[in-house]
Amino acid sequence: MDTGPRFITRAPVRLRTAVPDAEKLLPDIRAAIEACGLKDGATLSFHHHLRNGDGVLNAVVATAAAMGLRDLTIAASSIFPVHAPLVEHLRSGVVTGLSATYIAGPVGEAISRGVLARPVRLYTHGGRARAIECGDLHIDAAFVAAPTADSYGNLNGTEGREPFGTMGYPMVDVQYADFVVALTDHLVPYPACPIDITQDLVDFVVPVESIGSAQGIVSGSTRITDDPASLRIARSAVDVIAASGLLKNGFSFQTGAGSISLASAAFLAERMRASEVIGSFASGGITGSLVEMFEAGLFRTLFDVQCFDLRAVDSYRRHRAHQAMSASMYANPHNRGAVVNRLDCVILGAAEIDRAFAVNVTTGSNGVMLGGSGGHADTAAGAKLAIVTTRLNAGGHAKVVEQVRTVSTPGASIDVLVTEAGIAVNPARGELRERFAGHGLPVVEIDELRARAAAQGRPRAPIDRSTRPAAIVEYRDGSVIDQVPTLPLSP
Amino acid sequence: MDTGPRFITRAPVRLRTAVPDAEKLLPDIRAAIEACGLKDGATLSFHHHLRNGDGVLNAVVATAAAMGLRDLTIAASSIFPVHAPLVEHLRSGVVTGLSATYIAGPVGEAISRGVLARPVRLYTHGGRARAIECGDLHIDAAFVAAPTADSYGNLNGTEGREPFGTMGYPMVDVQYADFVVALTDHLVPYPACPIDITQDLVDFVVPVESIGSAQGIVSGSTRITDDPASLRIARSAVDVIAASGLLKNGFSFQTGAGSISLASAAFLAERMRASEVIGSFASGGITGSLVEMFEAGLFRTLFDVQCFDLRAVDSYRRHRAHQAMSASMYANPHNRGAVVNRLDCVILGAAEIDRAFAVNVTTGSNGVMLGGSGGHADTAAGAKLAIVTTRLNAGGHAKVVEQVRTVSTPGASIDVLVTEAGIAVNPARGELRERFAGHGLPVVEIDELRARAAAQGRPRAPIDRSTRPAAIVEYRDGSVIDQVPTLPLSP
Repeated sequence: MDTGPRFITRAPVRLRTAVPDAEKLLPDIRAAIEACGLKDGATLSFHHHLRNGDGVLNAVVATAAAMGLRDLTIAASSIFPVHAPLVEHLRSGVVTGLSATYIAGPVGEAISRGVLARPVRLYTHGGRARAIECGDLHIDAAFVAAPTADSYGNLNGTEGREPFGTMGYPMVDVQYADFVVALTDHLVPYPACPIDITQDLVDFVVPVESIGSAQGIVSGSTRITDDPASLRIARSAVDVIAASGLLKNGFSFQTGAGSISLASAAFLAERMRASEVIGSFASGGITGSLVEMFEAGLFRTLFDVQCFDLRAVDSYRRHRAHQAMSASMYANPHNRGAVVNRLDCVILGAAEIDRAFAVNVTTGSNGVMLGGSGGHADTAAGAKLAIVTTRLNAGGHAKVVEQVRTVSTPGASIDVLVTEAGIAVNPARGELRERFAGHGLPVVEIDELRARAAAQGRPRAPIDRSTRPAAIVEYRDGSVIDQVPTLPLSP
Repeated sequence: MDTGPRFITRAPVRLRTAVPDAEKLLPDIRAAIEACGLKDGATLSFHHHLRNGDGVLNAVVATAAAMGLRDLTIAASSIFPVHAPLVEHLRSGVVTGLSATYIAGPVGEAISRGVLARPVRLYTHGGRARAIECGDLHIDAAFVAAPTADSYGNLNGTEGREPFGTMGYPMVDVQYADFVVALTDHLVPYPACPIDITQDLVDFVVPVESIGSAQGIVSGSTRITDDPASLRIARSAVDVIAASGLLKNGFSFQTGAGSISLASAAFLAERMRASEVIGSFASGGITGSLVEMFEAGLFRTLFDVQCFDLRAVDSYRRHRAHQAMSASMYANPHNRGAVVNRLDCVILGAAEIDRAFAVNVTTGSNGVMLGGSGGHADTAAGAKLAIVTTRLNAGGHAKVVEQVRTVSTPGASIDVLVTEAGIAVNPARGELRERFAGHGLPVVEIDELRARAAAQGRPRAPIDRSTRPAAIVEYRDGSVIDQVPTLPLSP
């Protein structure tokens, strides 16, 4: 892992130059695949701003399959249940390679059961940007879902039929891919305005019936929990922030869309209001709760790589200080300074956390792939205070464990674990432990939490780790930190 | 010159990565030069958004000189009279190489008199972006004048003491330079907002007493002419546009800040209003006249690489549809499609134009360097209708000549010449000539204009073209189209 600055060289960008009178509009996806000269073995990239509402990945892969292409690699930023049709293409050999920062749903299940001979590459958001920029992940053609596009390739995510907000992920892909294709269901007269991705980066524009549904952006729980234990954890996380000494003017913050995270944000807002703290920024995937705090003046700005709900989409459209950031600006360790480097505090979730504070957000208790790091490891590495919140148990299984099934985020970058049964501090952060104790917070040993969790839950079923890897977990700097073993075909 | 699309490979970007806790603020320019590891022979880049008010180039070069650095190359976007102190550094050997798109004032004079052994490289705006991107012009350190910066390198041009508006030129430099240094006289709490150049591209931030004066942006004539011949030319140019058939909804337009151009814009506004034409965009260096047309609804958007006056700065700050563009997006022939490719019409000036419609905007009648292409050749190449407006004579010399002293823009991309004595159409555009004649416009042979100009003016003094070149004129695609000979030391 990185210990200091170093000199790096990025991959040279290859592209086809435009002549003044060339047009970019193509009739359909097939024409675009032909125009890009895609062959068997090509790598196609996709982004997940429409999350479980994405219609582009399925449409493009279906077309490639119908054209007889084989052995494709899909370099997606994330894969959701909506991408279930991909499983058939994995089985048939149309797609034989896959990388992403997060894989949930049927594709994750199929990968875990060994559908691909070649292991999947799991990146962090920042690591994916790094891999693209340095050439580890070369993209033959990037496909961009564009809620609005003009015929010369200026794109935005804020107008149109299915606006999803910022375009933080493809902002990286389009700079390094050999070809860039925008798909849109809302073609406007030249030039589009505003512009999130500019024409000089886009080769072709394809009008399609639909790019998917913005209603699918919000998936799963985005309500504040009403579970008392979870609420206690959320309050406790905010106590930890207050006790850390970081909660003063200029405070910067990130959290996700999980139910404890949303509750934490609400309690944090109360605390900031009460202590008259004006934060500098909130970042990441932006939720309505962070927008509320921003609109209430609790944060001066937002840095948004991806809108997590329609409230955030609307805010990005309206507020100049709700600023887009690329995945590289957000979290790439190999640029001149990512936003995560300026984070005071991040509140993170966990499927499991172990005695070394390592976190698993990649596999479930049965060993099946259910997610991935996204920005987990990136923000944990960058933030001054990385807090993991979790209940001791879920679904009858312990979540604080001896050793996580999969290391998504190394323990060295997690500072504090907050549970309903107390707060554990990473032994490397002795000064924090003293601070918290001084503030009367319920500091306990992580081993005590592990023991209590074990006592309340049944043990995980053992997994044979000697099988060939279904996935390789790559840290943000490109080093391999774990692998996900292939499971037996029938669970 | 380009005839069709081709596949190109850009230069690999080299950079020093940031570690999470690294700070970027440095006490002074000397510290920045040291932090960049600049040595004898290094290439330093600068941009000219403050035009004749720029204070950054002089300050950095003076510091480098005081530190004993020698043999530097200055890769400026443009050089103005305010950069007169550079002459001493050229004489002393501190600076032995220079490139720019435009060189006016004492530096141009000194270059023409042979102060440098190595010829200066003259680019177009788009060609400079191309040269940087492909590695022809490698920058060791880019110095960016930032009207506003935070301590982590987010920059904008719209707030602060000396706002100059968009940052279109350094947007390219900062992506390819080994090191990027921002100088600012207005340091704000992190994060700056809005952001024109993002932190992931900036290594160091140096607070300075002054980056210069925004009052210096406007230099020379920016008033509408009251000279009857010039007004006639301006009206005639608008007649040409109307007769061309391009003046309909979606019309796009560019012109400069010269007095005939400003008058043309005013007459064009009248014509668009009268015929109820709504244009799509105006582009280039944006003037108050174009802002007025935009605010009056005559153009839906503006594409701005550089604000030409404070009215434009103010508009860029306030209007979302007043959009920034990088020099590459503006005019680079080697990306996926520049804005100039979408131009219907550009109105250009000329120091001289010849029988082959080649234009000189680089050298004066005495052969001394007085400018350069800027976006002249770029817009001429991209626009459907490239109009040159000029009086037949100026300063007693003919401006329509047998052969221009220096080819800044090849005649092949100029469609029409408009003078007070009539309109000449490039023979390659026979259909335009017929159209104009059909509209009763005073179409004449360019040779007739040349003859009339010659009759009214005294001949240029001959120049010895066999001397070593003081400057090489590079076309936007990288091909060399002319050279500027060195003149005798005393005029």
